[in-house]
Amino acid sequence: MTDLAITAADVRDAAAQIRGVAVRTPLLEFMPLSERVGHRVLVKFEGAQHTGAFKFRGAYNRLSRLSSQERAAGVVAWSSGNHAQGVAAAARLLGIQATIVMPADAPAVKLANTRALGAQIITYDRHTQSREEIATALADERGAVLVPSFDDPFVIAGQGTIGLEILEQASEIGATIGRVLACCGGGGLVGGIATAIKDTAPHIDIYSVEPEAFDDTARSLASGRREAVLPGAHSICDALLAPSPGSLTFPINKALLSGGLVVSDDQVRAAMRFAFQSMKLVVEPGGAAALAAALAGLAPRGDGATVVVVSGANVDPDLFASIIAG
Amino acid sequence: MTDLAITAADVRDAAAQIRGVAVRTPLLEFMPLSERVGHRVLVKFEGAQHTGAFKFRGAYNRLSRLSSQERAAGVVAWSSGNHAQGVAAAARLLGIQATIVMPADAPAVKLANTRALGAQIITYDRHTQSREEIATALADERGAVLVPSFDDPFVIAGQGTIGLEILEQASEIGATIGRVLACCGGGGLVGGIATAIKDTAPHIDIYSVEPEAFDDTARSLASGRREAVLPGAHSICDALLAPSPGSLTFPINKALLSGGLVVSDDQVRAAMRFAFQSMKLVVEPGGAAALAAALAGLAPRGDGATVVVVSGANVDPDLFASIIAG
Repeated sequence: MTDLAITAADVRDAAAQIRGVAVRTPLLEFMPLSERVGHRVLVKFEGAQHTGAFKFRGAYNRLSRLSSQERAAGVVAWSSGNHAQGVAAAARLLGIQATIVMPADAPAVKLANTRALGAQIITYDRHTQSREEIATALADERGAVLVPSFDDPFVIAGQGTIGLEILEQASEIGATIGRVLACCGGGGLVGGIATAIKDTAPHIDIYSVEPEAFDDTARSLASGRREAVLPGAHSICDALLAPSPGSLTFPINKALLSGGLVVSDDQVRAAMRFAFQSMKLVVEPGGAAALAAALAGLAPRGDGATVVVVSGANVDPDLFASIIAG
Repeated sequence: MTDLAITAADVRDAAAQIRGVAVRTPLLEFMPLSERVGHRVLVKFEGAQHTGAFKFRGAYNRLSRLSSQERAAGVVAWSSGNHAQGVAAAARLLGIQATIVMPADAPAVKLANTRALGAQIITYDRHTQSREEIATALADERGAVLVPSFDDPFVIAGQGTIGLEILEQASEIGATIGRVLACCGGGGLVGGIATAIKDTAPHIDIYSVEPEAFDDTARSLASGRREAVLPGAHSICDALLAPSPGSLTFPINKALLSGGLVVSDDQVRAAMRFAFQSMKLVVEPGGAAALAAALAGLAPRGDGATVVVVSGANVDPDLFASIIAG
C-alpha cells in the first residue's frame, strides 16, 4: 500500500502534531441508541471538537507544517463551512492570515463563525461560479498556500487521528469494535480513519456514508473508478456536497473500505431528531449521516460494536428547530 | 462532620455500586466557553447519563440496596420528571415495579420517557394537590418503599459520584480545579458533590445555583436555617422547583458550600442558546443553571478551573426551539 497518499505512520505523526491543541473528543454510549439498533453502538462526537466539526484536525496538521515564509504569505481555502472554520481556527492559533472562499448560501452559523475566527471571507454563487478558480487565482496573486479540504496528505492524516482515538478509547472501556461508519464528502475523513484503523485492526470494517443524491463514493467503490455526482443533485447535508471522490482519497478508500452506504435526507432528519431526544447532542445534517445509516440498519451485522462518527454540529437554529419539531 | 447524613466513604461505596451500570459522563472543555468566561471552564455533561439527567445515579444506588422482599413490593416516588425517569430506569434494570407521582404539567418528554421505561404514572395538579400525600398513601397501601428525590442518604451519595468523577477526570487531563458550580433544587446533587470533593480537596469551593424565584438554599445558607420558597414563585427550570432545602441535604450544604448563586430565567435561556451554538449540547432549563452562573460571571474568581455541572437535558422540542431562536 505504499502507493497510497498516506500511511498509518502519517496519522500517528499527525496525532503527535495536534496533541494538546485539538480536542480528544469523547466516545459516548447511549442505551436508547444501542437498544434501537439492536447491538452496542458507540458514538465519536466531533461536535465537541474546536469549531464544532472534525475539520480542525486536518487543518491544524496542515497549517502547522508551513514554513515561516509560507505562514507570512497566508493561506487560502474553499469550503461550505466546516473546513472554513477549521482552517480559520488553526490559522488564528498559528498567527496566519486565512482567506476562505465560501458559497453565499452556506449556513449562516458557518459564515458567522468563520468570520468571528478572524478569516477573510469571499462568497461565490455555487450555481454559476467555480470556487476552485476563485481560490486558485487568489492564492496565485498573493503567493499564498491553498489548503484543500480533503485531497491533501496532511489533511487526510489529521482527520485520521479520529481513528486512533476510537481504538484507544474503545480499549479503555473494554469494547470490541466490529465496524466504523463515517460520513463522506470528498472522502478525507473516512479515508484517514480507515488508514489509522486497518493498520493494526484489519478485521474492523469501515463504511462510508453519503446522502443519496451525492453517492459518488458508493458508486465509485462499486465501479472501481471515480464517478461524479449527477447534475442537479440536492441534499440537506451541506457539508457532504463534494462532486466526486478525491484523487488522493479514492485510492485509499478503494483499498480499505468495506463498502459505501447511502442515506436519504429523511433518514438524516430522523437521526438529528433521535440525537436531540435520546442522545442530547446537537448534530448538523451532514454530521448525522453515519448515525442515520446505523439507525436505518444499513450496516451489515456481525460481531463487535458499531462506531458511528458524528462529524459535525454546525446547524442554523431555525433549521434545527424545524427538524426536531418533526 | 459525623452528624451529616453521608460521608465521603458513602459516596465511594455508591461509586462501586453504580460502576458499569451508570454512565461515566464526559468532562468536556470548549474554547468559546473558556474565552467567554475569561478562564478555563470544564463541563461535566450529565445529559449523557442514562435518562438524560444525573438522577439515575442516586436512584440506582437506592434501589439496588432494597431487599428482595422490598423489591417485590415495588417502589413509589414523586418527581417533576428527572428523578421519575431515573427511578423508572433503575427499577427496570432491577426488575422492580415503579409508580411515580408526577405533575400533570410536567414536560411531555419527561412523562413519555418515564412511561416508556415501564413505570406507572399518576398525575396530580401542582397547584391544588400534595404529591407527598398521594405518594405516601400509595406506598402505605401497597407496602412499597418511597424513594425520595433528595432527602435520602443513598440518593445523596449516588449523586455525589459526580464529584469523584470530576476529581478523577480533571486529574487525567492535568487540570487544577478551583471551584464547582452545580444546580440546586432540594440540594442532593450539590450536597453529594460537596461531600465527595471536600474530603480530599477541601480547597475547592462548591457553589449551589438556583433560579431567582427558588433561591431558598441561597437564602438558607445566608441565614443559617432552612428558608422556604415564597408563594407564587415561577421559573422555567421545572427541575429546580423544590419548596425548601432538605432536612438531610441542608446540614451538608451549610457545612460544605462556599455560597449560593442565583440566576434569572433569561440568564438560563441565554445559557441554553450558548450550549446549542458553541458547545453543541442539548441542555434543559434546570440543567443550564450552573452554566448560566458561569456565563454571567457570578462565581468569585480565583486560581484553578471552574467546573460547571450540566445536570440534565430533557426538554420538549417546542420549548427548545423557541429558546434557541432567541
